[in-house]
Amino acid sequence: MPDYKAPLREIKFVMDELLDMPGHYASIPAFADVATPDMVDAILTEGAKFCEQELAPLNRIGDIEGCTRHDDGSVTTPTGFKEAYAKFVEGGWPSLAHDVEHGGQGLPESLGTVMSEMVGTSNWSWGMYPGLSHGAMNTIALHGTHDQKETYLTKLVSGEWTGTMCLTESHCGSDLGILKTKAEANADGSYAITGSKIFISAGEHDMSGNIVHIVLARLPGAPEGTKGISLFIVPKFLPNEDGTPGERNTLICGSIEHKMGIHGNATCVMNFDGAKGWLIGPENKGLNCMFTFMNTARIGTALQGATASEASFQGALAYAKDRLAMRSLTGPKAPEKAADPIIVHPDVRRMLLTQKAFAEGGRALVYLAAQQNDIVNKGETEEQRKEADELLGFLTPIAKAFLTETGSESANLGMQVFGGHGFIAEWGMEQIVRDTRISTIYEGTTGIQALDLLGRKVLMTQGASLRNFTKMVHKFCQAEEGNEELAALVKPLAEVNKEWGDLTMKIGMTAMKNRDEVGAASVDYLMYSGYAVLGYLWARMAKVAQDALANGTTEEDYYKAKLTTAKFYFARILPRTKAHAATMLAGADSLMDLAEEHFAF
Amino acid sequence: MPDYKAPLREIKFVMDELLDMPGHYASIPAFADVATPDMVDAILTEGAKFCEQELAPLNRIGDIEGCTRHDDGSVTTPTGFKEAYAKFVEGGWPSLAHDVEHGGQGLPESLGTVMSEMVGTSNWSWGMYPGLSHGAMNTIALHGTHDQKETYLTKLVSGEWTGTMCLTESHCGSDLGILKTKAEANADGSYAITGSKIFISAGEHDMSGNIVHIVLARLPGAPEGTKGISLFIVPKFLPNEDGTPGERNTLICGSIEHKMGIHGNATCVMNFDGAKGWLIGPENKGLNCMFTFMNTARIGTALQGATASEASFQGALAYAKDRLAMRSLTGPKAPEKAADPIIVHPDVRRMLLTQKAFAEGGRALVYLAAQQNDIVNKGETEEQRKEADELLGFLTPIAKAFLTETGSESANLGMQVFGGHGFIAEWGMEQIVRDTRISTIYEGTTGIQALDLLGRKVLMTQGASLRNFTKMVHKFCQAEEGNEELAALVKPLAEVNKEWGDLTMKIGMTAMKNRDEVGAASVDYLMYSGYAVLGYLWARMAKVAQDALANGTTEEDYYKAKLTTAKFYFARILPRTKAHAATMLAGADSLMDLAEEHFAF
Repeated sequence: MPDYKAPLREIKFVMDELLDMPGHYASIPAFADVATPDMVDAILTEGAKFCEQELAPLNRIGDIEGCTRHDDGSVTTPTGFKEAYAKFVEGGWPSLAHDVEHGGQGLPESLGTVMSEMVGTSNWSWGMYPGLSHGAMNTIALHGTHDQKETYLTKLVSGEWTGTMCLTESHCGSDLGILKTKAEANADGSYAITGSKIFISAGEHDMSGNIVHIVLARLPGAPEGTKGISLFIVPKFLPNEDGTPGERNTLICGSIEHKMGIHGNATCVMNFDGAKGWLIGPENKGLNCMFTFMNTARIGTALQGATASEASFQGALAYAKDRLAMRSLTGPKAPEKAADPIIVHPDVRRMLLTQKAFAEGGRALVYLAAQQNDIVNKGETEEQRKEADELLGFLTPIAKAFLTETGSESANLGMQVFGGHGFIAEWGMEQIVRDTRISTIYEGTTGIQALDLLGRKVLMTQGASLRNFTKMVHKFCQAEEGNEELAALVKPLAEVNKEWGDLTMKIGMTAMKNRDEVGAASVDYLMYSGYAVLGYLWARMAKVAQDALANGTTEEDYYKAKLTTAKFYFARILPRTKAHAATMLAGADSLMDLAEEHFAF
Repeated sequence: MPDYKAPLREIKFVMDELLDMPGHYASIPAFADVATPDMVDAILTEGAKFCEQELAPLNRIGDIEGCTRHDDGSVTTPTGFKEAYAKFVEGGWPSLAHDVEHGGQGLPESLGTVMSEMVGTSNWSWGMYPGLSHGAMNTIALHGTHDQKETYLTKLVSGEWTGTMCLTESHCGSDLGILKTKAEANADGSYAITGSKIFISAGEHDMSGNIVHIVLARLPGAPEGTKGISLFIVPKFLPNEDGTPGERNTLICGSIEHKMGIHGNATCVMNFDGAKGWLIGPENKGLNCMFTFMNTARIGTALQGATASEASFQGALAYAKDRLAMRSLTGPKAPEKAADPIIVHPDVRRMLLTQKAFAEGGRALVYLAAQQNDIVNKGETEEQRKEADELLGFLTPIAKAFLTETGSESANLGMQVFGGHGFIAEWGMEQIVRDTRISTIYEGTTGIQALDLLGRKVLMTQGASLRNFTKMVHKFCQAEEGNEELAALVKPLAEVNKEWGDLTMKIGMTAMKNRDEVGAASVDYLMYSGYAVLGYLWARMAKVAQDALANGTTEEDYYKAKLTTAKFYFARILPRTKAHAATMLAGADSLMDLAEEHFAF
């Protein structure tokens, strides 16, 4: 397994130098007093230590051992997982970014995202246990009654209990409108939940005293489709009057899925057999309630892509400096050795720099989204909140799909750098590929994100959400128009930024005649958008580095490396937009002409 | 696991209609009498039956069980593997394409390739056992003495014994020049081989009576590097006078690797402890001897890419017709059902058609290469053999790297079509991703193939090998210039064909100043070349289909589907060349500017 070293310098670059998180925290009254620079530093330092020392060593153990389900439905997690969780709770980590009112520390969610990055890079499977709890916490915080918050939220915030989201059924995942789980009213105001849910991450385990399931189900006579779904809280143990876990509820883990990766996380089939639950939020508005924090959940998955790039980059870089093979095409670089370290070879560097560009660019994108999320939740004015919400809504499908797709690419490149050893489990590189592969699927596949972006976010707003973003990019490009050192960045960025709008117009026009044009163009459109957004962020990072160098710095090498990586991105990654631009205009006919029965003979 | 159905109609399309294999076989005296259309048909039918009925059902068993090494170094293969191999031998399959002189059936190697496609698509891991034998057989057939052929080759051809290729050591794979295994002369003319080899596919198992290892090692005082490597035959059991396996040689399987995929194949660490071996070929010419059939081995791996596309396409297509989710954007297509089958969605079709285009295009490319290989080995005139050898040499790195890269893409798309279920082992889609992942690494990584193509094959011949190919494409485009129905294919093909030459010139020029430019451009150049070659083949397949329709056929739907897929390829896949063209010209500086110590801070 590659060692994990929290990239604190890179994290601080994005937080302090690119996004001015200190200023951002200071400007939001809810955070001004708590998220002080000292506090942030302490959290980064302690968080890094916890992830490097406690979680990283468990990553491969989790993969090898996986989770075990016993005959009584109980589940044992891999060796050390439970103990690490106890330390995590002891350290107060679950409560970091939750409201003081329910026992939280009241720190910004964006700071929680930074911690999640370190947790996820060191051990994604482990991180899913506390990660899923956030989904349950957000649901209850936003839609729960006072009593529900008292009973469940406080225990989730402290980490004593964990939570899950029970959405998917075997016949439906993306299309929740056709789900079948039933909720029937009991005499006491509770509901009897009956049905079977699959792919329930952290559905059953041995880490916490209780598990709070948030379950999507249908009330009797509810309207068909997405408008007839309600949300329920269904705890594993029914809470006693004093808040302690009481009677065992009639729900059970029926089996654990055998998966390609994230073996350390228990992915459960959860069977509810008249299990007692309580309605949360209004009847038949379950999906709407879920949508209120869908951006957060999707940004969490976007993060998985960025962590795969980072983890695989760290492993591949160390190997490329160490492994000897062949001589450089321009003559020996380590003549005293039997061969040169493979980092001298241009193609190995191409792979490493691609990973690096996606890891650092991905971090910038995720943090930018997280910053908007802070404002959505705690911004002072309605106007600020609305503006941030629009930007977040636009960035979310891009970040989710683009960063997970490029995360898979990075992970595969990392394997490739290792050659044959990359395919062998003990090196840990193939685990990253397997673990991250789910990220382009769950929380809405790449295809679903692409429809959300092009259909809902862009075309349904007549392009307004895109224009808000491209205006920002345009402003940056104009300001840097005379910046000669960055010309190789600013010029192509301005071109792509303009083309982005033109392409959108063209697709919008054809889509008015044929709705299939949206689906036909969507994934190429999304990937194009991803490269454009990352281009903007890389150009801004280059500008930060340029300024730092101009102003005098003791970290010259660091800022020069940042500039070099930015230049690499524009020379070697951004040109991919050319293929996506051509392909998204290819039209729906090339996809729809073949009759279903003629795909194979 | 998706069911495997041998795509005989597609196989025959490429063999009979695209490449005129019947005419090709008839024109080569060695094959004219044996590879008759009846014989070929019988082999396809029987081969398909064997693969569908015997091998496909073992594919997932192999993945689940893997291989087990016992304390004595023996290895047990997964349930059913041994029995299937016995039936394979009984059916005479190992001898199919080997010389009659040593017990073979004397059929063309290209027919062996077709059989390998069916074997590999149904169960790649199983296919590696007989597959590796071919490497050993080729080595002995080309470089062995009469006695060596009598003793080993006949047993390998019959399938009684199997073979391996022992090249890699833990510190070297791509760079065999630094290998350390020693061979010291014994008094009796044999050699004592000492060293440790890794990644030895089929290195130890329970299927055959003996295992014949072909081992690369150094003689005492041999020159350093690649010019000091010799080849040895090192059998597991030393043959008795009567040819039966005798005394156990001092070599042992030290362990089995735990790998990402191809679990059914035993990938062994082989320890040679003064094991008895015999020199094969001239001293210190071991690598040259290996090169003589490297094209064949690499085409065999190229095939793995195409089989991954085919296998994953078959699985994804069945699922896409069956799985219900959402309604078509243009209105319900199956109003009687709860939702439409997902094949109505444009993006699902994009994924399926991409797989289909790579599977069918990949088959065409592999068979084309196999046809050249037939001529190289058995062509009548020196001129024919030379011409075929040049074309084969040019196509080999392209087929190997491009088809394995696109095979991985196809396999991942197949998983994606399955959504969350794709990540679950029981559906078998993720196994295809894991199994095929090694194909871009072994037999020379994508990076190695790219250097071979651009450096050795193209630039070292001053572009001659490329021109031979682009001339052929140019001729086709000229002939079809007025073909209106194919204009959307022929025009972009002609443009890419011209650009291909221009790009080569530009890179050739910069490479004269800086050798790193070759490595910096190589992988993009290779991928560009792959899309161009497949474009040519798809255009030719479209032409075949067009002619069939014009001439009247009972298979109108089939040929129309072929035309539609060709149009899809040009609309949606070929434009990827735009990105590769831009990127390959980005120059080496973007990769070489960053100092090794500044990749991370």
